[in-house]
Amino acid sequence: MESAIPDYLKTARTRHTRYGDDYTPPYPAFVARHKPSVARVVMAYFGLQFQAADEAATAAPLAEIATAFGAENGPGHWDRAHYTDEEGFETIISIAYWDDPLRFDAWFASHGAAWAGAEKPGPFGFFTEILRPSITRYETLFSSVGRMEGLAAVADGLSDMVREHAYWGGMRDRIPLSQTDAMAPAGAPKADGGNGHIRIVPHENLCLIRSGQDWSDTDDAERRMYLDDVEPVLRAGMDFLRDEGLSCGCFANRYMTVVGPDGKPVEKSFGMSWWRSLDALERWSESHPTHVAIFGAAMKYLMKLGPAAKLRLYHEVTVAAADEQFFEYRNCHPKTGMLRAV
Amino acid sequence: MESAIPDYLKTARTRHTRYGDDYTPPYPAFVARHKPSVARVVMAYFGLQFQAADEAATAAPLAEIATAFGAENGPGHWDRAHYTDEEGFETIISIAYWDDPLRFDAWFASHGAAWAGAEKPGPFGFFTEILRPSITRYETLFSSVGRMEGLAAVADGLSDMVREHAYWGGMRDRIPLSQTDAMAPAGAPKADGGNGHIRIVPHENLCLIRSGQDWSDTDDAERRMYLDDVEPVLRAGMDFLRDEGLSCGCFANRYMTVVGPDGKPVEKSFGMSWWRSLDALERWSESHPTHVAIFGAAMKYLMKLGPAAKLRLYHEVTVAAADEQFFEYRNCHPKTGMLRAV
Repeated sequence: MESAIPDYLKTARTRHTRYGDDYTPPYPAFVARHKPSVARVVMAYFGLQFQAADEAATAAPLAEIATAFGAENGPGHWDRAHYTDEEGFETIISIAYWDDPLRFDAWFASHGAAWAGAEKPGPFGFFTEILRPSITRYETLFSSVGRMEGLAAVADGLSDMVREHAYWGGMRDRIPLSQTDAMAPAGAPKADGGNGHIRIVPHENLCLIRSGQDWSDTDDAERRMYLDDVEPVLRAGMDFLRDEGLSCGCFANRYMTVVGPDGKPVEKSFGMSWWRSLDALERWSESHPTHVAIFGAAMKYLMKLGPAAKLRLYHEVTVAAADEQFFEYRNCHPKTGMLRAV
Repeated sequence: MESAIPDYLKTARTRHTRYGDDYTPPYPAFVARHKPSVARVVMAYFGLQFQAADEAATAAPLAEIATAFGAENGPGHWDRAHYTDEEGFETIISIAYWDDPLRFDAWFASHGAAWAGAEKPGPFGFFTEILRPSITRYETLFSSVGRMEGLAAVADGLSDMVREHAYWGGMRDRIPLSQTDAMAPAGAPKADGGNGHIRIVPHENLCLIRSGQDWSDTDDAERRMYLDDVEPVLRAGMDFLRDEGLSCGCFANRYMTVVGPDGKPVEKSFGMSWWRSLDALERWSESHPTHVAIFGAAMKYLMKLGPAAKLRLYHEVTVAAADEQFFEYRNCHPKTGMLRAV
C-alpha cells in the first residue's frame, strides 16, 4: 500500500486528506507513475465534426492527423474515439499524449496548429482542445493492472496499490496540488473570434475527466451483465450531462466509443467532460441522482463478481490553470465542446 | 442561507470544509439551534431488555423511568422506541435529552443512576448509555421544519436553510470541532466489571448517530412508496450493520420503531448506532453497498416526489470525548450495545 502522491511530490500540507489514519480501501486500485524527470504532460484532443453523409470523406483528415502523429516529436501514445452528438453530428476525436511539453510544442508548430487553426474549405468542423498540466495538477486511477489507457500509456508504469481511493474525495486527494490548494475556479471562459473560428479564453482551474471502461476481456455472462445492467445507467448519466450538464457546472460531455485502427468500434468506451471546477465534478459525482444510479449499478456489479470481474475501469482527472489550456474551434456548430460554455 | 455552525462557535480554521465557495445545496435542510448559553447537552438511553413472554411485566420499570423523567431536573424532552434484537430479545429504550449537564447530574444522582447501577432481581436486562457532549461535538440535520425530534426538541429552534449539506462530508463540516480537529479515534473500548454488571471504559472520539424518518404525514400513495420502495432497503442496511457492522467499525446498530404514550408503534422509526469513529461512519455511508442502496432508493423517492414529499428525515451525530461517555449494562446478554465492542 502506498500513497497516490509519490514522495518527490509531497509537500508540507496546509490542507488535509479526507481519510483517517486507520483507513484501508476495501479493494485495490492503482495510479500511473511517471519518471521524476517528467514535470508536465500534454493531452491533446483533435476533433473532426461531420454529418453522417460525409463519412467517406473523413478518411483524408483522419489519415492526415495519424500521419502527423507519426512525425518527429509526435505523441508517445494516441487513440481515437467516436460519438454522435446532441445535434446529430458525428465526431471522431484523435487523442494524443506527450510527457514532454517541449517536444509537443515543436510537433504542434509543424503538425498540429493547422488542424483547427488553418482555414478549411468544408464540409467538416475541426477542433483542438489541449491541456498541458503540471504533474501536480492531475491524477489517474486504474481498477486493474496490465493494460494502460490514455495518459498512463506515456507513464513509466503503474504504482502498487494506493490508499487514496474508494471514498468520495479520493480524486482530489490523489492530485498533488490538493495538499496546499483548494483549486477553486476563478473567472469564466470567454469566446474570442468569429466567422467560424473561435478560441476560448480560459478560466482558472477548469477540470477535465476522461473516465473509461473496457469490457473486452469479459466472458459472455459478464459482458451481458455489463451491457444490460450497467451500460444503460451509465448512458443515462452521460446523456444527462450532455443535455443538462450546464445546470451543475458541466460545460460539455462526450460519451465516446473507442475505435480501432480500422475505424471500427472496440469494446471500450469513455466519458470525457469539461467542468467549471473539480468541486462541480465532485458534487455531481457524489449526489446527482444520475451518478448515484451509475455508482449503485457499478457497485452491485462489482460486488456480485468480486475479484473475478474482468471489466477494466480507469480515469484521468486534470485541474488546469488558465495558461495550461488551449481551445480552438473551426466551422463547428455552437454547441461543440467549450463553445457551450460561452 | 446560513452556516450550520453558528457565528459564536466559529474559530480560526486549521481544517477546510469540503464545499467550494460557489456551492449551493440543491434542496433545503435545517439544523437545531441552541441558545448561546448552552455549552453542553446530555442524551441518555435507558434500555430495558426482555423476552417477549415477559412483556406484561415491563409496565412497572417503564412507568418507573417515565415517572423519574417527570421529577425535578428531569429531561426537557424524551421519547421511547422498540426493537427486536439479533438474539431475539425485545428492547424498549426510553431516550431523554437535557441541555444543562448540572441539572442532568442532579437528576441522575437521584433518579437515573439506579436504572442499570442497582442490583435487579430479573427477569429484565437494564442498560444506560449516556453521552454528554460539548456543543462543539455534534450536529443535527432536518429535511423540514415544524416538528422537532430527538435532541432538537430541547433546542431553541431550527436554523434557516444551511449550506453544509447534500454532499459527502457535510456531517463533519456541520460539527464545530471539525474546524480545527480531525476527531480521529484513539484507544479502544474496554469492559470493566462482571457478574452481569459491566461498565465500558470508553475510547476517544466514539461516534453516535440517531437517524430517523417520520412518514406520519404521508398520504396513501406516498406511504406505499416509502414502505414498499425505501423501507426494505433501509432495513437491509440496518440488518447489515446489526449483524456485520463490526467489520466496518460499527459497534452496534438498533433499527427502532418509535412508540407512543400507549406503547403502540407510531409511524416513525430511526436507526441508532455506535461507531468507532466518525471516519468509520463516513466510509460506510459513502461507499458500502448497503448504504449506497439506501441512498439510491431515498434519492429516487425524493426526486420523484420533489418538494411535495411529506416524509420527514432527521439525524443527530455526536463525536464524544472519552470523558463524555457512560455505558452501564446490568443482566444484559453479551451482544447488547457496546458490550459487542469489547
